[in-house]
Amino acid sequence: MDPGPAGAAGPAEPGPGVRGAGPAAPASSLAVAAVLPAGGSGERMGVPTPKQFCRVLERPLISYTLQALERVCWIKDIVVSVTRENMEVMKDIIQKYQHERVSLVEAGVTRHRSIFNGLKALAEDQPDSKLSKPEVVIIHDAVRPFVEEDMLLKVATAAKEHGCSDYDLEFGTECLQLALKYCHVKAKLVEGSPDLWKVTYKRDLYAAESIIKERISQHICIVMDTKEDEEHVGHHLEEMLKNELNHVKVTSGPLCHAGRDLQQIILEQCYSFVCVNVMTSEFEETKKLVNMLKESHLSVLYPVIVISVHFLDYKSVHFDHKMENLMQIRELAKEVKERNILLCGLLIYYPQDERKLQDSLRQGATVITTLIKERNSAFIGQLLVA
Amino acid sequence: MDPGPAGAAGPAEPGPGVRGAGPAAPASSLAVAAVLPAGGSGERMGVPTPKQFCRVLERPLISYTLQALERVCWIKDIVVSVTRENMEVMKDIIQKYQHERVSLVEAGVTRHRSIFNGLKALAEDQPDSKLSKPEVVIIHDAVRPFVEEDMLLKVATAAKEHGCSDYDLEFGTECLQLALKYCHVKAKLVEGSPDLWKVTYKRDLYAAESIIKERISQHICIVMDTKEDEEHVGHHLEEMLKNELNHVKVTSGPLCHAGRDLQQIILEQCYSFVCVNVMTSEFEETKKLVNMLKESHLSVLYPVIVISVHFLDYKSVHFDHKMENLMQIRELAKEVKERNILLCGLLIYYPQDERKLQDSLRQGATVITTLIKERNSAFIGQLLVA
Repeated sequence: MDPGPAGAAGPAEPGPGVRGAGPAAPASSLAVAAVLPAGGSGERMGVPTPKQFCRVLERPLISYTLQALERVCWIKDIVVSVTRENMEVMKDIIQKYQHERVSLVEAGVTRHRSIFNGLKALAEDQPDSKLSKPEVVIIHDAVRPFVEEDMLLKVATAAKEHGCSDYDLEFGTECLQLALKYCHVKAKLVEGSPDLWKVTYKRDLYAAESIIKERISQHICIVMDTKEDEEHVGHHLEEMLKNELNHVKVTSGPLCHAGRDLQQIILEQCYSFVCVNVMTSEFEETKKLVNMLKESHLSVLYPVIVISVHFLDYKSVHFDHKMENLMQIRELAKEVKERNILLCGLLIYYPQDERKLQDSLRQGATVITTLIKERNSAFIGQLLVA
Repeated sequence: MDPGPAGAAGPAEPGPGVRGAGPAAPASSLAVAAVLPAGGSGERMGVPTPKQFCRVLERPLISYTLQALERVCWIKDIVVSVTRENMEVMKDIIQKYQHERVSLVEAGVTRHRSIFNGLKALAEDQPDSKLSKPEVVIIHDAVRPFVEEDMLLKVATAAKEHGCSDYDLEFGTECLQLALKYCHVKAKLVEGSPDLWKVTYKRDLYAAESIIKERISQHICIVMDTKEDEEHVGHHLEEMLKNELNHVKVTSGPLCHAGRDLQQIILEQCYSFVCVNVMTSEFEETKKLVNMLKESHLSVLYPVIVISVHFLDYKSVHFDHKMENLMQIRELAKEVKERNILLCGLLIYYPQDERKLQDSLRQGATVITTLIKERNSAFIGQLLVA
């Protein structure tokens, strides 16, 4: 497929707990909540799992939608209507992916009853309820994971202005028709962006997975085991990578100086790391990097990929010895896989011939790019050769 | 993503020259042609290439649509309207992917003019024209690659019955409205299947690529270098693969006996081959297989993947010697890449411990499955380890 940003791509979405500077919140007095009807059975998908629970990069789709709503700080509560048989599944999702501000209610037999149950939970002014009564409720499909803050702001503002707070404003669905018929209020239709598409068929799951992979591959961090030196092979590789990865933000530097910088890069949600080892065939630098990533909890929401790059210089170290050393990557990779960190090794030939070296580096850059973009756990612990 | 067949999946599509037994053709006297307006600029896609020329598995999308029409034997001629600047590109596509029955006309400034130019070429009864005048013309979007024969049959039959032969019957588009307005004929709307979706946004290209990859991975062929013996490690691996690859047709047997069978398997459009070498660490069997594939021209339309599997038995051959041997796969892979054959190596540890052996085999099956499904040319020539 041709490279380039996806039509639906944007900056990587911050995870829970990290808030970007987004559009201004509606008037600070406005209390907004969201209800997600998620009682569907996913018949059209052709798979036994309801589509909101289908896995995309091994995480259920609904978790992406919750993440999109949670990063909007002015949405105070999110209520999910879920069937009784999926209640425990949903509780596990909330715990595993550390969702905050999410409450569960039981779904009704129809989508409208599910919405009604969510609204009722928000409206009840019980002393033991942790929910606060909102002025505006956004009803959002659990299977529209790519909703953006500005879209939600438009909906909330329109709802406030038009006084209709309990129905769905998406694209003139049956909810809008019901509101028009029974509520005697003037409904406002808010234009949606193409990003707001709904995961309906299995092909939409494929598309969602590709879009998410592309989003989390928009920033890569290159860590070097040497100080800066424009001439060495690590920097040549970096230049190749920058050529391959158009539109991708690349930051680089030595790990020994980069402790604090790296914390900042992790906070900015960089999910792709290339650890370039020029000086040694050991994994010490890679281990340090992986430990920092483990401590950061960065990999709770997305798989973090780490590629440990080594060079094979025929002069200095014997091939077999080096290979044996590098095969240790399998054990390390197995260990960190548990934490959703995908570790692969790459050995780049370092021939004396300048043209051949350029070929090796170019091939290495292609392998790195593919590992980052595909982010496939089947290749962890492999030692690839370029 | 959860495994299972895609909503839009079907049997692998036969390439040009191979005709499956499909639905009955319309009354044999009915002459049917197709016009594909392909003059679009692809603005919504957000990429500079018009969407009909965007590459899916390195082949332009329009070639998939032509393939879908060509395998319908009762469509006699296919006329593509293409802009002057893309005329050479289109000629190259026809030649490279060996399309037959395709003629080109110049696109007009609008979609309707492009359709008109296609119809005019079919209507002209010039002695030097290789086109025959049809009774029914199907107008088909160049960016709907998943059209099935039964759908085309419904459209052709409806057009014959309702006497409307020069407009688009897709989903009440502007063409249908024009026909109703100007032609004074009763138009018949034919219900489309979800498979008939149109590639519009970049996310649709992602979905198309995933669907095509899934289709061509529905049949795998395992070639063994030994005679049948239920006990040996190759057969254990085969069992593991059958477990991993639900819904996938697996055929297997030794290559030495399978020459004729293999020709049949190639004719049935199997695009995934696993060459299991139990007896040797040489590539002789793999080379034989690759040569048969080269001669067959199977890889003209889709990349054919070949995985050469070897076992690392500590008892018999020294590790380093074996590795050195196996590294030769890089040269062989580079050579056959030119022919769209993707060759990878897989070395499976063969420990004495039965439980550990099962682990190795399971991991090997996962790597094989992923290589087949992802079909990524960046991994050719790699020697993966399980």
